[in-house]
Amino acid sequence: MQVVNVAEKFTRFSDHFSPKIVGELNDSYVKLVKLKGEFVWHHHDAEDELFMVVKGTLRMGIREDGREREEVVHQGEFIIVPRGVEHRPAADEEVHLMLLEPKTTLNTGNVRNERTRDELERI
Amino acid sequence: MQVVNVAEKFTRFSDHFSPKIVGELNDSYVKLVKLKGEFVWHHHDAEDELFMVVKGTLRMGIREDGREREEVVHQGEFIIVPRGVEHRPAADEEVHLMLLEPKTTLNTGNVRNERTRDELERI
Repeated sequence: MQVVNVAEKFTRFSDHFSPKIVGELNDSYVKLVKLKGEFVWHHHDAEDELFMVVKGTLRMGIREDGREREEVVHQGEFIIVPRGVEHRPAADEEVHLMLLEPKTTLNTGNVRNERTRDELERI
Repeated sequence: MQVVNVAEKFTRFSDHFSPKIVGELNDSYVKLVKLKGEFVWHHHDAEDELFMVVKGTLRMGIREDGREREEVVHQGEFIIVPRGVEHRPAADEEVHLMLLEPKTTLNTGNVRNERTRDELERI
């Protein structure tokens, strides 16, 4: 049991779209990730995900009921994307996110491509 | 699905030791709470809890292996208290916390007293 300083953890890595594990509780991991650019559209069949913006601005693309929209999430705000909902995180400038999601969650959800990360580093 | 601004949510209440629900995902709630003073020593038999300090300084008392210690958690830091571990949140000045814990979690854990909150408001 130790105190985790989120800003300090963000100094430990610089790669994008590659979540790091910084905590675990119950069936979930707390992860940190840096994004810049557009991620892939995907969904998670069985996992809800929380995206908390620690720095920067996140543009979360969402496809629901056959329509596409974008939610803008600023520093100090979070959004919860429910299971089954198609989404695409994007950021014009680098954004720092804290994620909370079940341990079973794959970053690219139902998609497999060069951005899929099966093994996550703990920092 | 909506964007939640944490600071704005904190303007909506002023009572202490009374968590408010601001989100839910999977089997967990995201809660906000303001503390000032000492809470009660307690533990949760089956729930790990995350305490993220949004403002102020949290003093987390911990009893483990027959010893008592205190972890100081500053703004921008979090601590995860595993199930079964006796703990007591305290704050000399008002502290704003974001909590993440299973929906089954009672704020006073194994203890029932005047600070127990069975029904939590959603804000």
